[in-house]
Amino acid sequence: MNSGAQRLRSHIEEIVSLSDEEFEQIFSYFKPVKKRKYQFIVEEGELVNKEFWVVKGCLKSYFYDDQGKEHILQFPMENWWTTDYDAFINRSLAKTSVDCIEDCELLYITYEDKEKLTSESHKMERFWGKKTKAGYVALQNRILSLLRNTAQERYNLLLAQYPQLFQRVPKKFIAAYLGVTRETLSRFQN
Amino acid sequence: MNSGAQRLRSHIEEIVSLSDEEFEQIFSYFKPVKKRKYQFIVEEGELVNKEFWVVKGCLKSYFYDDQGKEHILQFPMENWWTTDYDAFINRSLAKTSVDCIEDCELLYITYEDKEKLTSESHKMERFWGKKTKAGYVALQNRILSLLRNTAQERYNLLLAQYPQLFQRVPKKFIAAYLGVTRETLSRFQN
Repeated sequence: MNSGAQRLRSHIEEIVSLSDEEFEQIFSYFKPVKKRKYQFIVEEGELVNKEFWVVKGCLKSYFYDDQGKEHILQFPMENWWTTDYDAFINRSLAKTSVDCIEDCELLYITYEDKEKLTSESHKMERFWGKKTKAGYVALQNRILSLLRNTAQERYNLLLAQYPQLFQRVPKKFIAAYLGVTRETLSRFQN
Repeated sequence: MNSGAQRLRSHIEEIVSLSDEEFEQIFSYFKPVKKRKYQFIVEEGELVNKEFWVVKGCLKSYFYDDQGKEHILQFPMENWWTTDYDAFINRSLAKTSVDCIEDCELLYITYEDKEKLTSESHKMERFWGKKTKAGYVALQNRILSLLRNTAQERYNLLLAQYPQLFQRVPKKFIAAYLGVTRETLSRFQN
């Protein structure tokens, strides 16, 4: 079994236990893909038919507002699931893009295969159900934080939760995540 | 079958079809509860063991920031599922409260019963999985909107999506949802 497969199995087994046969069936739905820094896996305005799991690397999920300003929603990295979920679930056009900040190794599953796999496998329905719930809570906490905390407080929270982000991600992207300028970010770091 | 049961069955069958026996088994996990205007169903700082489905009525989910300002996250109404999901899922203390804006009829399921029901029933795992995904997308769109749109634009979007909200919910709560003062809200309405 290659390392991506082993890692995916461990990741799924954090929530549901699997026999070798069950994992083989599940893994047969996934395909590997490598992307270089700056390449896209989701593009705004396109149909979205794939959900990705990050084996290795770091990406950003983002959109531009009407003034052309970049807003970053997430920095998916190892063990994260990512796509434009609105477009993926509702078969609509992407409102966000996802591209690579580092060279990336990913696994992906198509919409049709995910539907098929979750229909066949109560365990995978359960696994993704729990993952989606955790994602829902993370988004809700981001909303609470956007409404409650200053940018300085949100910077401190991000640093506490993802210290490695500050080594891996250029400062301009951290600023675009927090919704502040580079200059304001520099003040936080002093 | 009472009207709450019929309505819940229709609601679930928008996503998965059920036999009479399957619905009876599912419904046996739910209990009805009536609450008057101003009563709480979730209180900040308390353990949260119930998820509610709104048969009739309108509620608000909210928290206070460090300055004592109320921020409203959602206005759950007919057919919505609501609780403090972070606390419910992670067995932690509620960071938000949910109380009634109108007299309400609700159905609830406890954490243990929901775990049992979703383990027994692939269909209910699937149903809640789809609901959670839709909720995830709604939260993501709220984040996009908080980062992208002015308060005036968010007011217009809310009015377009939930026109009935403006008849049912006092203006001070709409202002607390949008994060503006009553005076600013009045300007939007002219």
